[in-house]
Amino acid sequence: MKQVSLCMIGFGNVGQAFARLITRKKDELEQRYGLNLIVTGIATARHGKAIDAGGIRLSVALRTMQRGASLDLLSQQPAPQDMLEFIAACPADVLLENSPVNHHTGEPAAAHIRAALRQGMHAVTANKGPVAHHYQELSSLAASVGRRFLFESAVMDGAPIFSLFRGPLPAAELIGFRGILNSCTNLLLEMMEQGKTFEEAIEYGRSIGITETDPSADVDGWDAAIKVAALSTVLLGIPLKPQEVQREGIRGLTQKQIAAARKAGQRWKLVCTARRRGSQLIEASVKPQQVGPDSPLFAVNGTSSFVQFQMDTLPGLGILESDPGPETTAYGLLADIINALRGQ
Amino acid sequence: MKQVSLCMIGFGNVGQAFARLITRKKDELEQRYGLNLIVTGIATARHGKAIDAGGIRLSVALRTMQRGASLDLLSQQPAPQDMLEFIAACPADVLLENSPVNHHTGEPAAAHIRAALRQGMHAVTANKGPVAHHYQELSSLAASVGRRFLFESAVMDGAPIFSLFRGPLPAAELIGFRGILNSCTNLLLEMMEQGKTFEEAIEYGRSIGITETDPSADVDGWDAAIKVAALSTVLLGIPLKPQEVQREGIRGLTQKQIAAARKAGQRWKLVCTARRRGSQLIEASVKPQQVGPDSPLFAVNGTSSFVQFQMDTLPGLGILESDPGPETTAYGLLADIINALRGQ
Repeated sequence: MKQVSLCMIGFGNVGQAFARLITRKKDELEQRYGLNLIVTGIATARHGKAIDAGGIRLSVALRTMQRGASLDLLSQQPAPQDMLEFIAACPADVLLENSPVNHHTGEPAAAHIRAALRQGMHAVTANKGPVAHHYQELSSLAASVGRRFLFESAVMDGAPIFSLFRGPLPAAELIGFRGILNSCTNLLLEMMEQGKTFEEAIEYGRSIGITETDPSADVDGWDAAIKVAALSTVLLGIPLKPQEVQREGIRGLTQKQIAAARKAGQRWKLVCTARRRGSQLIEASVKPQQVGPDSPLFAVNGTSSFVQFQMDTLPGLGILESDPGPETTAYGLLADIINALRGQ
Repeated sequence: MKQVSLCMIGFGNVGQAFARLITRKKDELEQRYGLNLIVTGIATARHGKAIDAGGIRLSVALRTMQRGASLDLLSQQPAPQDMLEFIAACPADVLLENSPVNHHTGEPAAAHIRAALRQGMHAVTANKGPVAHHYQELSSLAASVGRRFLFESAVMDGAPIFSLFRGPLPAAELIGFRGILNSCTNLLLEMMEQGKTFEEAIEYGRSIGITETDPSADVDGWDAAIKVAALSTVLLGIPLKPQEVQREGIRGLTQKQIAAARKAGQRWKLVCTARRRGSQLIEASVKPQQVGPDSPLFAVNGTSSFVQFQMDTLPGLGILESDPGPETTAYGLLADIINALRGQ
């Protein structure tokens, strides 16, 4: 049995789902993987910070968050307010970085990951920012210290995308991909197909917690663009910043256009595409497109997402994730931890 | 650089596509994986057999097949007519078993694999028979001799299904799956939607090489059933024979039913399903079902196939393979060889 200690930055929906997941899977992790996962640090921006070298009681941490109390109460030693000092003070084998995404720089998440790797931790994140903006640097750093930088949950939650290309698809050359990578806009477009205005759809999205208070990251295509950048950088091997993606959101789409498409048996989708020729990207875009029933994108409903990869060896391998939630993202983090520890 | 020699049983469309694939990928395999693959034996039922310990010239073997000549001419030593004796005489590190499927027993493919493993070869196959009928025995045997028994191409050609669960999806508990696993019937149903009778559809399928002379394995659901059995046995961990799958083919479907569904915005699909509760299968079936546009099965067109997995950690992970052919099956064999050699 190997005890592995985790330092968690961020303890929102995903962090809490992760805490519940490893609690539920405790026996399975011990029996199948010989792992005893403990959380030695949790740092939040607004709900306090705790360090306990013996392992924070996750049930207590979850209850504390539910009651809106501060995690400070759980700390067994002074927990530095500065995040980099917190990481330095936290005795851990793996950093779980789940701070909010910064679409334009990937910071401060990248700084947290850099610090953790330099301290000899593996770094696992659901945050797209450091992947799109700092992949080369962070994976080189990880390799140089014999640790891993993994980020399965950064695109399509817990669906295996990056690990698919690390393992099951050897000697396959990726030429391009096409998909629906932003759940929020996919739901909004569906609401508009059902007759809602854009504003009503946004309001509905907010009521079920899918749409942010400021919906611009989703509706203007930034979330989709950063995912295109991450996939291009990591899987196509062509570094690309979200700012370089040809980006058009869904604000320009009228209810009339959507109704007309529907009448013609078509649907508007926010489609992500990238294609390369040799080492040159010939397309990297996020834009609304009409798709017909002959397209695998047609039946991607609600908050589901989908990507189809074109390879020299497989002309069209599609991955669909239906009904994602914080639990699926949390699972991607757990898969990364196990794969980092077993070297996959 | 590691030289790895292959013994190929069967050299039809898939075997020949494999020979072209490893010829095209020679440099990539050397540079990325340090592998030099050579074929030291090819055995066919009706086009001769050849053994060459130094490596058969694949371009010559391909030309020989195209001209309908016998591979016997290429043999550098007497090649035994009996397949088991052939395997014993062939100096090889990996057996590639691509003989025709036997839906009811999995033989003689299983005997070939058994013999190869006992000789210390890895065994790789696109043949569903030995997987559905002999998985436990053959994988135990492989483990006992420190070799691998891999069969990625047995279900959905080269799409990564089995390797997905070996690597990227640790600590995920599979509860069930639902999909379209037989390409031929999917194409036939589409032809019938376009107004063709069952007989005309079969005729068209034959003209493009999708439908066998005797189409019963496809249209009566045997091919789908053996895939359900393979997935249940390997991924759900519940041994199941194709004969135990509740099986209904597409012969009973009338053009009238298909037209009526189409008018109602629905499509008939041959749907494969398996679900378990604990260690009990509560469903394992192949049957025609109507699906609507809200289902990911709706847009599975032509010879594409699709499966959606339900796990405790991911509620709906779908894998779509579009436009498969002998090349995609050949790629699955190559992926298995690389993964066997690198222990993934």
